[in-house]
Amino acid sequence: MERYDYNLPYMLQYEHVAWYEEGEVKILDRRIYPKEVSYVNCKSYMDVRQAIKDMVTQSAGPYTAAGMGMALAAYQARNLKDDDKIEFLKNASEQIATARPTTENRMRKITENSLDIGIKAIKEKKDPAEAIKNDTIKSLNRRYSTMEIVAKNLCLLIKDGDKILTQCFGETIIGMMLRILKEEEKNVSFYCAETRPYYQGARLTATCCSEMGFETTIVTDNAIAYLMENIGIDLFTSAADTITRDGNVANKIGTYQIAILSKHFNIPYYVTGIPDDDKYTREDITIEMRDPNLVLEGRTAKNVKALYPSFDITGKEFIDKIVTDKGNYDPENLHTYFDSETKRFY
Amino acid sequence: MERYDYNLPYMLQYEHVAWYEEGEVKILDRRIYPKEVSYVNCKSYMDVRQAIKDMVTQSAGPYTAAGMGMALAAYQARNLKDDDKIEFLKNASEQIATARPTTENRMRKITENSLDIGIKAIKEKKDPAEAIKNDTIKSLNRRYSTMEIVAKNLCLLIKDGDKILTQCFGETIIGMMLRILKEEEKNVSFYCAETRPYYQGARLTATCCSEMGFETTIVTDNAIAYLMENIGIDLFTSAADTITRDGNVANKIGTYQIAILSKHFNIPYYVTGIPDDDKYTREDITIEMRDPNLVLEGRTAKNVKALYPSFDITGKEFIDKIVTDKGNYDPENLHTYFDSETKRFY
Repeated sequence: MERYDYNLPYMLQYEHVAWYEEGEVKILDRRIYPKEVSYVNCKSYMDVRQAIKDMVTQSAGPYTAAGMGMALAAYQARNLKDDDKIEFLKNASEQIATARPTTENRMRKITENSLDIGIKAIKEKKDPAEAIKNDTIKSLNRRYSTMEIVAKNLCLLIKDGDKILTQCFGETIIGMMLRILKEEEKNVSFYCAETRPYYQGARLTATCCSEMGFETTIVTDNAIAYLMENIGIDLFTSAADTITRDGNVANKIGTYQIAILSKHFNIPYYVTGIPDDDKYTREDITIEMRDPNLVLEGRTAKNVKALYPSFDITGKEFIDKIVTDKGNYDPENLHTYFDSETKRFY
Repeated sequence: MERYDYNLPYMLQYEHVAWYEEGEVKILDRRIYPKEVSYVNCKSYMDVRQAIKDMVTQSAGPYTAAGMGMALAAYQARNLKDDDKIEFLKNASEQIATARPTTENRMRKITENSLDIGIKAIKEKKDPAEAIKNDTIKSLNRRYSTMEIVAKNLCLLIKDGDKILTQCFGETIIGMMLRILKEEEKNVSFYCAETRPYYQGARLTATCCSEMGFETTIVTDNAIAYLMENIGIDLFTSAADTITRDGNVANKIGTYQIAILSKHFNIPYYVTGIPDDDKYTREDITIEMRDPNLVLEGRTAKNVKALYPSFDITGKEFIDKIVTDKGNYDPENLHTYFDSETKRFY
């Protein structure tokens, strides 16, 4: 079977995101990676649900875990009658899709697709676990190959010798960008904002950049202006959790201020991703407020509160290009993205 | 004896910074405060030197520990002949002054003053330990009372109901500001940037603000733009490690970008402190680069580097007022500070 994860950093290879085999799903524990390379072994789809809930994997990781979890559900149901197998899979789809409230819609697309594949296999007297696993890999290939196109378009904007600043972890786009830059033999260096409070930049992005052979430096989130003034950054790039049709983006907290600083220092900011069909303006974006204890971490006095918005919104006036699978758009023209047909993504 | 530390937060009261008594100096361990309230007990001046070196106390704490350490040295020498006592104190002065390279000049002012007081007491057949301790308290009173004046001038710029953003830990000025705001019955709230990688804002400033009864919220260093746009900050204030005669400042890393963001959001930035007599322009400021491992903390791949500048420099164009013991200056007029006589500070 064709695979699109060749030559990617370790943590983006399918087996190291989440993988079904012989009645078990193994999920790389991203909470401790790369300090420790350790897998959570799930013996049931409810274990997979719990692992997603517990943030064993995050970013795009749960989409892979969801499909593999459905394959595991089919394996669990192997000795049931056909109707009961289907009922079992329906329950699994519901449970896995609702593991985390904010991504329920996207997760449901994946689990319901797996459900359809499973039902078809059952009716055709084939192995539904194998069918769901193979279809999950197809879905992964769709996502990875689309992100490869996005990354190719981003790399058009990157020159040999560039110093690139990133925020948070852009998952597949970061991996694809690194693979392409290596193929193009562009010698660039990365500066990764550590991205408090979860440190995705320091733990995940920096690890991928360094593993792929690029010079990589972590900067604390409060050293960005120093970095831009004293080290000289050529471009800032980030992925996006949401891109509205009118060219605004929501991304991990901290993106907005780096975008403002980029404007101040005349550094271009390139956002990567697929615009959201159903989001028209910034009013359609909801900022999730997360548990303040994740910021406090017990290091202050007991009456002190904390603020933990998951994301912030960067207005289109701070964005130079929105880099998509259909090319690079000025934010004010992004709405034309939907003039032509869009690719199936999940 | 008159004292200027009344009604200040716990960690700014003299006994809780560093204190000599009965052959021992106790230093509050600020590395773990407020999670634990624990003291390092020093039985010799070399223990005090080591405690300063190990960052048991930091910011202005070492200036107090230095004087108290000299009192302890005099106690250690109690059974020596007068000439040997003086020799012993001279060695102590040298050792304590050089505990940390960057503050040697200021530390030496304190230890050499203690040395003079000790020699005078020895010659007058008085107890040099007691004399040095009392003189250290006098020196503390000079610093605290000067900072009280600075804080009074800052409070002229703070209105009832203001939301105040701070960076790092402004030590005595923060304490004095809180005492004055309380006396003036101004109901303000504080937002403390956590100040990576050492978290002084979260651990020290937030603790002091909350202890003094003000509503206090920690924000990660990457949430500043979100905060300014969504919560509405009325003013940003920080102390300064260096203030040049021409109105530029160096302060803890992160200050510069908050100043840029303040300008962007039309929020005034007030710097507090005493200008440096011997620093004329930003070229006179050296940025100390600290150990990158303090940023890395073992959470990334092994080839990844980190950048850890201790401070950054904020140009006068981002500063609204420089608040001193002689009043509030526009940065371009700061040079006139030295037209009138300056107060003894240490």
